[in-house]
Amino acid sequence: MTNDSITLSDKTIGRLSLYRRVLERTPKNNKPIGHIFSHELAALAGFSAVLVRRDLMTIGFSGNPKKGYDAAELLDCIGKFLDAPGGTNVALIGVGNLGRALLAYFTYRRPMLSIVAAFDANPEFTNRVIQGCRCYSPDDMERVVQEKNIRMGIIAVPSVGAQDAADRLMRLGVTGFLNFAPVALRVPSSVYVNQIDMTMELEKVAFYARQTKE
Amino acid sequence: MTNDSITLSDKTIGRLSLYRRVLERTPKNNKPIGHIFSHELAALAGFSAVLVRRDLMTIGFSGNPKKGYDAAELLDCIGKFLDAPGGTNVALIGVGNLGRALLAYFTYRRPMLSIVAAFDANPEFTNRVIQGCRCYSPDDMERVVQEKNIRMGIIAVPSVGAQDAADRLMRLGVTGFLNFAPVALRVPSSVYVNQIDMTMELEKVAFYARQTKE
Repeated sequence: MTNDSITLSDKTIGRLSLYRRVLERTPKNNKPIGHIFSHELAALAGFSAVLVRRDLMTIGFSGNPKKGYDAAELLDCIGKFLDAPGGTNVALIGVGNLGRALLAYFTYRRPMLSIVAAFDANPEFTNRVIQGCRCYSPDDMERVVQEKNIRMGIIAVPSVGAQDAADRLMRLGVTGFLNFAPVALRVPSSVYVNQIDMTMELEKVAFYARQTKE
Repeated sequence: MTNDSITLSDKTIGRLSLYRRVLERTPKNNKPIGHIFSHELAALAGFSAVLVRRDLMTIGFSGNPKKGYDAAELLDCIGKFLDAPGGTNVALIGVGNLGRALLAYFTYRRPMLSIVAAFDANPEFTNRVIQGCRCYSPDDMERVVQEKNIRMGIIAVPSVGAQDAADRLMRLGVTGFLNFAPVALRVPSSVYVNQIDMTMELEKVAFYARQTKE
């Protein structure tokens, strides 16, 4: 199974990622899961069993009606589907509070998805190693991105520097961004941007939390 | 205009939040924006002008065909719509790397939405003040949540403690969560949960970034 099914929705991709993490982290009495039924996986992930079965059918994975899905095989199948062979190297742009938290959060979490370089205009960070990741001056971006075969960027700078950082990375062949700056990145249709706006997400909760109390 | 329109989609709420931030942070030559046309606001926010006009119509705000929207009045209108009168007090659960980044990120960012208390089981944090926010032991949750009239929670603990923290906060009247733990919180329908799963969002980008290169 290769990931040539580009037509899959990003919601499906998101759920596959979540199934993997649910399976990885749910030891029963500290033993890894052997088999799991779709309704069990559904309950752990917070979706319906129908949706779980449909998603796994989409990636060509089937279970045993009596025993459910073999968890190790399912993990392997999702990995082959989601992970690039050899892994994906990621650059972090911005080593402020958010950037440092992202380093701490992502380092060693996914072996196939590594933040291999961080860039920050503040010379205080240049050549420092934070959470196992070396920080560079933006002046070295061209060299480092090529040397380390970086294909993805995480933008954790304020709005004002975000587009410029994305433009530079795109010229170096980066085709995907996780953007935390509260600004819409202008990119060609061949580049994928996933925007996470923390303030917006928090304000949404505030709005709905208030509705239910009034 | 009050926010009694509970039928608004969370996408609309998200966009209103984004319009506000775009308007707040876009000084022309360091002067605040006077008027702005829907297509200008649309370009800054990354949506279509049609969508901007529809959203603002939804909250009963209209512009001047010749001059566009009055930015100060629009900010005021969005604020009345999104913000609770007197503001919303928020508790942060978990003062690890992610929790500390969230404190640094949110403190003083929105006057009407404040993280007024943080809780962490690690006694090292008890009574420390981080980014202006006092940390408490979970033992004090009942007292502090009531004293500070906390209505929202940000869950930044690992999966294993997330449901327990949410359950305790719900018993104290909290009705909205921003959940960073990669686990589906079980809540009644009267409680709003906004889940942000960083690893999932990153894996999505990796998947699509790879598609465009192959």
